[in-house]
Amino acid sequence: MATDYVHGYSAGETARLADQATSLTALLHAGTRYPAGSRVLEAGCAVGAQTVILAANSPRASFVSLDLSAASLAEARQRVARAALANVSFCQGDIYRLPFPPGHFDHIFVSFVLEHLPDPAAALAALQGVLRPGGSITAIEGDHGSAYFHPDDARARRAVQCLIELQARAGGDSLIGRRLYPLLVQAGYRDVTVSPRMVYVDASRPDLVDGFTRKTFTAMVEGVGGQAVGQGLMDAADWAAGLAGLHRAAEDDGTFCYTFFKAEARR
Amino acid sequence: MATDYVHGYSAGETARLADQATSLTALLHAGTRYPAGSRVLEAGCAVGAQTVILAANSPRASFVSLDLSAASLAEARQRVARAALANVSFCQGDIYRLPFPPGHFDHIFVSFVLEHLPDPAAALAALQGVLRPGGSITAIEGDHGSAYFHPDDARARRAVQCLIELQARAGGDSLIGRRLYPLLVQAGYRDVTVSPRMVYVDASRPDLVDGFTRKTFTAMVEGVGGQAVGQGLMDAADWAAGLAGLHRAAEDDGTFCYTFFKAEARR
Repeated sequence: MATDYVHGYSAGETARLADQATSLTALLHAGTRYPAGSRVLEAGCAVGAQTVILAANSPRASFVSLDLSAASLAEARQRVARAALANVSFCQGDIYRLPFPPGHFDHIFVSFVLEHLPDPAAALAALQGVLRPGGSITAIEGDHGSAYFHPDDARARRAVQCLIELQARAGGDSLIGRRLYPLLVQAGYRDVTVSPRMVYVDASRPDLVDGFTRKTFTAMVEGVGGQAVGQGLMDAADWAAGLAGLHRAAEDDGTFCYTFFKAEARR
Repeated sequence: MATDYVHGYSAGETARLADQATSLTALLHAGTRYPAGSRVLEAGCAVGAQTVILAANSPRASFVSLDLSAASLAEARQRVARAALANVSFCQGDIYRLPFPPGHFDHIFVSFVLEHLPDPAAALAALQGVLRPGGSITAIEGDHGSAYFHPDDARARRAVQCLIELQARAGGDSLIGRRLYPLLVQAGYRDVTVSPRMVYVDASRPDLVDGFTRKTFTAMVEGVGGQAVGQGLMDAADWAAGLAGLHRAAEDDGTFCYTFFKAEARR
């Protein structure tokens, strides 16, 4: 089952995904370490931005990083080679029809993937099939409806809503962070725990103002401007004002909030 | 300078404030302890729900708890007496014209108060006047725009917006949590740090489903139903559906998120 990928596959987008993984590493990867000898599936590795973090953090575990896109896999392979990591192999494949034997993996890591899928419940069920009984799944997702900022700005909120709407039109759900708990429970996983990881940004944290408010979130909204205006969700002037509102939140008296959700569960 | 208090002063409201203080104690009061002998102003103590926590957590500090409302102070006084706390005195007075000498206090605690004030910057300036140089201020506020839930529900979001709008009409700002950092910086405080305290609720935390989603947040929205419908912000049917949407988020496959902001700074 293929799906559009709302953020596209441009070089700029590749840089954004890498920026995002770097600045959020501590927040999202804290606590994720796999034991020596364990087999880990990274489902949906994209360009490998998180692959290198996973593999470096658990050097004695063996990773299989899967993606549907051959171009993304080529990028990921280069990134892993540059990082001189020898514990990752790659596999082109579909998360709904995984090319592995039942119960093959000890652990599964799936991050920023479920939001893009038309049927995340089916994906979680498929993943469960290749997880051994007692094995763990870790799922990380954002939630674009968790974004708010000071000064509050109606057009900036509408621009964010456009991103949410475009992702929905592409078959995804960018409000999926808040939904991880029921999704995992309904898919039959047990011991489900969800830990929100909130990014709060004010002028005392200039690295986050630049790395997150501007270069991660605002850049992501900016990236769908053509589609938002082209599909008539907002007119060009309102869109520009909305973007200005997001940039306004990155000024010295602005603040910005966004929450990621990290879920862990067992088969 | 008087201000309407959007939540009212009913007995039900008193119970809600007490419930709120109890279930959120660990989240909000963690880290707030005052040294022996220090003088602490609690500015805006209302019915004393937090007074008893503050005074119990710092038994050798001396608290002055101030409020504009004689009825609230009477309630607070009883609550402190029932808790057998001897380190609190009470004072009826106006936060904008504080009846204390300059630099009188070592520490100031102000919680769920600034959101109701038409001029929180002036209040923070007045508080600074009675704080000694080097003394600390701790400010805790919610942010009703930080509330989101699963399943997402447009009418439930509109009901929350009504609460925000009514508080604005009463001269307050219920989006003030995200604004604490610039408010404190602009008031001239230094070393301002803001720590968001997010409440995430799913079915694995039944105490929070009941104590927070239902009895704190949904009850607070429910409490302004008469005003929201009476002032024509929503019609009665949409309001009822919105409330049903909030209750829906408290079911087993629902989730609920809300964030408090705790700021600390020095004069």
